[in-house]
Amino acid sequence: MDKLEGIFTPLLVPLDENSQINEAELRRFVSWLIEKGVHGLYPNGSTGEFTRFTPAERRRIVHIVSEEAAGRVPILAGAAEANVKETLFACQAYADMGVRAVAIVAPYYYKLAPESVYAYFAEIARNSPIDLTLYNIPAFASPIDVNTIRRLADGFPRVIGIKDSSGDLAFMMRMISAIRPNRPDFTFLTGWEAVLIPMLMIGCDGGTHASSNVVPEITRKMYDLYRAGDTAGAMQWQYRILELFDVMLNPPFEFPDGFRAAAALRGFHFGHTRLPQTSVQYSEHKVLSGLMQCILADFELVNPPAAGCPVPAGNIGHDKLEQMVHQVFHEMKNRGIV
Amino acid sequence: MDKLEGIFTPLLVPLDENSQINEAELRRFVSWLIEKGVHGLYPNGSTGEFTRFTPAERRRIVHIVSEEAAGRVPILAGAAEANVKETLFACQAYADMGVRAVAIVAPYYYKLAPESVYAYFAEIARNSPIDLTLYNIPAFASPIDVNTIRRLADGFPRVIGIKDSSGDLAFMMRMISAIRPNRPDFTFLTGWEAVLIPMLMIGCDGGTHASSNVVPEITRKMYDLYRAGDTAGAMQWQYRILELFDVMLNPPFEFPDGFRAAAALRGFHFGHTRLPQTSVQYSEHKVLSGLMQCILADFELVNPPAAGCPVPAGNIGHDKLEQMVHQVFHEMKNRGIV
Amino acid sequence: MDKLEGIFTPLLVPLDENSQINEAELRRFVSWLIEKGVHGLYPNGSTGEFTRFTPAERRRIVHIVSEEAAGRVPILAGAAEANVKETLFACQAYADMGVRAVAIVAPYYYKLAPESVYAYFAEIARNSPIDLTLYNIPAFASPIDVNTIRRLADGFPRVIGIKDSSGDLAFMMRMISAIRPNRPDFTFLTGWEAVLIPMLMIGCDGGTHASSNVVPEITRKMYDLYRAGDTAGAMQWQYRILELFDVMLNPPFEFPDGFRAAAALRGFHFGHTRLPQTSVQYSEHKVLSGLMQCILADFELVNPPAAGCPVPAGNIGHDKLEQMVHQVFHEMKNRGIV
Amino acid sequence: MDKLEGIFTPLLVPLDENSQINEAELRRFVSWLIEKGVHGLYPNGSTGEFTRFTPAERRRIVHIVSEEAAGRVPILAGAAEANVKETLFACQAYADMGVRAVAIVAPYYYKLAPESVYAYFAEIARNSPIDLTLYNIPAFASPIDVNTIRRLADGFPRVIGIKDSSGDLAFMMRMISAIRPNRPDFTFLTGWEAVLIPMLMIGCDGGTHASSNVVPEITRKMYDLYRAGDTAGAMQWQYRILELFDVMLNPPFEFPDGFRAAAALRGFHFGHTRLPQTSVQYSEHKVLSGLMQCILADFELVNPPAAGCPVPAGNIGHDKLEQMVHQVFHEMKNRGIV
Repeated sequence: MDKLEGIFTPLLVPLDENSQINEAELRRFVSWLIEKGVHGLYPNGSTGEFTRFTPAERRRIVHIVSEEAAGRVPILAGAAEANVKETLFACQAYADMGVRAVAIVAPYYYKLAPESVYAYFAEIARNSPIDLTLYNIPAFASPIDVNTIRRLADGFPRVIGIKDSSGDLAFMMRMISAIRPNRPDFTFLTGWEAVLIPMLMIGCDGGTHASSNVVPEITRKMYDLYRAGDTAGAMQWQYRILELFDVMLNPPFEFPDGFRAAAALRGFHFGHTRLPQTSVQYSEHKVLSGLMQCILADFELVNPPAAGCPVPAGNIGHDKLEQMVHQVFHEMKNRGIV
Repeated sequence: MDKLEGIFTPLLVPLDENSQINEAELRRFVSWLIEKGVHGLYPNGSTGEFTRFTPAERRRIVHIVSEEAAGRVPILAGAAEANVKETLFACQAYADMGVRAVAIVAPYYYKLAPESVYAYFAEIARNSPIDLTLYNIPAFASPIDVNTIRRLADGFPRVIGIKDSSGDLAFMMRMISAIRPNRPDFTFLTGWEAVLIPMLMIGCDGGTHASSNVVPEITRKMYDLYRAGDTAGAMQWQYRILELFDVMLNPPFEFPDGFRAAAALRGFHFGHTRLPQTSVQYSEHKVLSGLMQCILADFELVNPPAAGCPVPAGNIGHDKLEQMVHQVFHEMKNRGIV
Repeated sequence: MDKLEGIFTPLLVPLDENSQINEAELRRFVSWLIEKGVHGLYPNGSTGEFTRFTPAERRRIVHIVSEEAAGRVPILAGAAEANVKETLFACQAYADMGVRAVAIVAPYYYKLAPESVYAYFAEIARNSPIDLTLYNIPAFASPIDVNTIRRLADGFPRVIGIKDSSGDLAFMMRMISAIRPNRPDFTFLTGWEAVLIPMLMIGCDGGTHASSNVVPEITRKMYDLYRAGDTAGAMQWQYRILELFDVMLNPPFEFPDGFRAAAALRGFHFGHTRLPQTSVQYSEHKVLSGLMQCILADFELVNPPAAGCPVPAGNIGHDKLEQMVHQVFHEMKNRGIV
Repeated sequence: MDKLEGIFTPLLVPLDENSQINEAELRRFVSWLIEKGVHGLYPNGSTGEFTRFTPAERRRIVHIVSEEAAGRVPILAGAAEANVKETLFACQAYADMGVRAVAIVAPYYYKLAPESVYAYFAEIARNSPIDLTLYNIPAFASPIDVNTIRRLADGFPRVIGIKDSSGDLAFMMRMISAIRPNRPDFTFLTGWEAVLIPMLMIGCDGGTHASSNVVPEITRKMYDLYRAGDTAGAMQWQYRILELFDVMLNPPFEFPDGFRAAAALRGFHFGHTRLPQTSVQYSEHKVLSGLMQCILADFELVNPPAAGCPVPAGNIGHDKLEQMVHQVFHEMKNRGIV
């Protein structure tokens, strides 16, 4: 089978007013992403809030996505469940749905040592009816170290790749140099779109990028520019994507709420996330949403907000926002209000 | 209703050879713990590996435990599920089973900011049909800070306590001084038995202690000695419990495997955990099991191993242990055993 | 020689308007502390900002302190310098000044492995002309683990104690149980006054507490109450000290500026710290200084500020302050100011 | 003056048998580095163990280096001292010696908030007689965040650049996009040679790389290949450098001992570091030194060790190394050698 490569979208899940999966909107979203050029789809990732759905809902999401994609792009389905047995049931279910491969995040909640991480993946790889990719996201789950990846790649043909969300280039290079000599078919995907182009330069095969839910045509363009040899052009977009990414990723947003809010600006109804929010948070998100609309308008993907964009587009980092808050506060202090 | 206090056992779950819940053994274990004097039972905690069971299995565990306890001790049931709606279903189910209260761990996987942690618990507290305790375990889940706890305690009578597994005494004091004035009924339980007696001294109402699965008569004795005014006697046992705790908690064990291995020495069949293990790990655990048997023999709870105890009982720090394990392991390696 | 025990004050250093050591004020401060009952003095600690003085200034500080103390209390002099040779020169100099012992912080800047930490202290202990105590402050310097402490205590009679600022009670218990059996003379001091009384209960010999610069009569009273068997009385003060400590320790203060500002309220001229500050910081400190004056007035040690104490004394945690800031900000947002 | 760019060597300092600066060897080393093509020299950096020298020694090092360089390459002199006043004295001294600029590390030991980091650098920048670069090394010192860098770059023309050793590409991009628009003259240097080529691609001006003490001709070649448009050629060397870097950087070496040991293989007498070592460490270092000789032989810079190279050159990950070291070490232990 073909090696996985290119930009895979870790799909956001639209919810309806009852907090149920909005199937119609999810289908519309899937087709839009494919039309905008993403190379593949990755349901049940961290961006897809897999932990907030039930096992049955996770299966339904993959079912809808694979049916709607209808073979137009390959599907990498997040298949981690409560334990190995349940995970293998999910692997079988997704194999039956015709997905290209499953992605299994390292065990989370408990922080496991490398030997246990190895034992976990080895047991799954030994019994899986479908190809699988490892998913390393050390901010949320037990880290998968280079030696563990090598042991798994060397021991199990079913293990065909890794998605790494650490954003650490040297770590990616260590993985590539440890594994590619023995397994030239092994796929290396980065989950940290802030550095997609540098990751491609050091040899990555692509990425699974939350931002591609919002600006799929641009993550695709970056990929194509780089592959066509236009590094400078790709890097120019990399800088602009970083600006958007930083607003979507940072407080006051909880991940992936900033991505949901930004993707909504592209014309989709994502509904409220399943994580409850306070009124303070709603207000903050609204302010940020206006800012993101300005950035997307500057990308020429949406219209600017009716009220206009108060700040010149470009270069509005999270620091500046924080600074604004502090300035206001000190202003009030000076006036004796606090 | 009575305030929660004393030692609650966060129950280990015995599994059979098919990795299914071993109901008979779980019942036997529950009754043994009650007979040995624990004040309450806490199924579906971290020690109970709640994340490795399905929602249906988690309900079955609470059902078995509450039926077997039959009102002899109060039950605090871990009720966290994939999202607020599922959690509230579990709360209702456990209320119907007659448990005293539920315990809800802070959201994990995603690391949430205080405002989101507040929103999550507030939504549950607003709708729960049963009293609930917060569960703060910052090593595994989003931290619950003092201000968030105060907001929840002040706003929701359904929130009746907190279990804190940070082991940080100053943090416990900050919670107590922020909340007790307004909510004298609020329960403070520590989940860090390494410092149970100091926690009682600063005002805690008790603890949920993994070690009470292994030595329930001793954690009870410590509690009683302290309450009876015998601080010195209680501290003597605190030092001995710490020695056992450090062996059970640390590598090469993954939590809670060391506790499972030690509790097995008391005559229960816990079976293999659902987390796969390598042969190297099995060998290491066997070595450690012998050591734990020596400690328990020194406590006069079990017989020493047939081969005798190579080290004098008492005062075996973790460093020394680790060194011993490595020596043994490398010796085995040299002889080609592993 | 006598075992070190009781409360040692890690001395703040008064500076004059040229940022030079204010010798007259330092002398006055030293005598005041002794009169208020501290058991010993500890110049050149973290509270004394040892890193911000030159080697010659550090010697001068110890010289002034020991001359002024004139044998009334023992002196523990911080002696860490750029390398082992320079540190040994300082040890000799302090021995010549008649201090009781020196304190050596673990190597900082570079984070060293346990074997290197051992090698460093062993080299000093082997050659020191004076007793020395280890100083473990893992937030700032390479951690000293239990095994390293044991190796040093077992190997070098010159090593007579440890000051630990981790605040971790279980760690303190591990140290005590590893070392006291072989070295009953070894001193265990806590540097985390938030938990002084619990630390005394588990067996500590005393502490080196920044707060004793501010409220020496109270840290002494806590110690005496506990030693006299009045745990409840001691704990009552422990809770009140924690409230003060949290204001002094946390942002917007940098350590030890909050302690300097609070000690100034007792009538000493500490001058500006050597760390430059912005006008924003000066304003913030002024607000906090008023708050600390209210707490000290509630302790009946100073008069309340002329403007009165806007909040009822007691229970003003850092959270509440932060909350105030947020409330103000959201208020402004609601009014459309930001 | 010219913008700083290219590869600056953070100079190792040769010591004689009395642990004093070996001036003759330092001079020979400086000239060798210049001949091998480094673009500049950076004495008193972390690699130069600035914290282990006295203020007088630090001045002497810069004096020797600048005299020996004699204008052939620009010098960036580490000038951080105990406090701002002492730092400014050092700045004046280095200005008098004709260095191009000074580098000031963020305050360490105490971990400072951004406002304090700003105040510190602002005070120095306001009074410095010479251009200065910021030095961000969050593993060892208070982090310098993007907003702080921007405030400094915008406010002080004397601040001409930053050296960042975080190795975080996204952070570097955030700095560049925040500062370059207003300050096109500002220099961005990476201190993390593991990712030099990706850093150049995103717009860095060069780096200060510890590895250039060992393989100056190769770090120069990488730089030249990239600047000449041969990304693939540069990346090939980047992968090989990473392999060497990982051996030099990781345990059992303490930084910068691995770099000292490797540079010694190029024919210089570095002597023992000032950090004491145990005999266990000497043995381990010896094993690693043989391995590094194999890597350098593979680079065709030195002869292989007489005993030959047991492992095929290339692709020796750190995990494998660690394993080898342990095996060798335990083998030695078994034979009673250590």
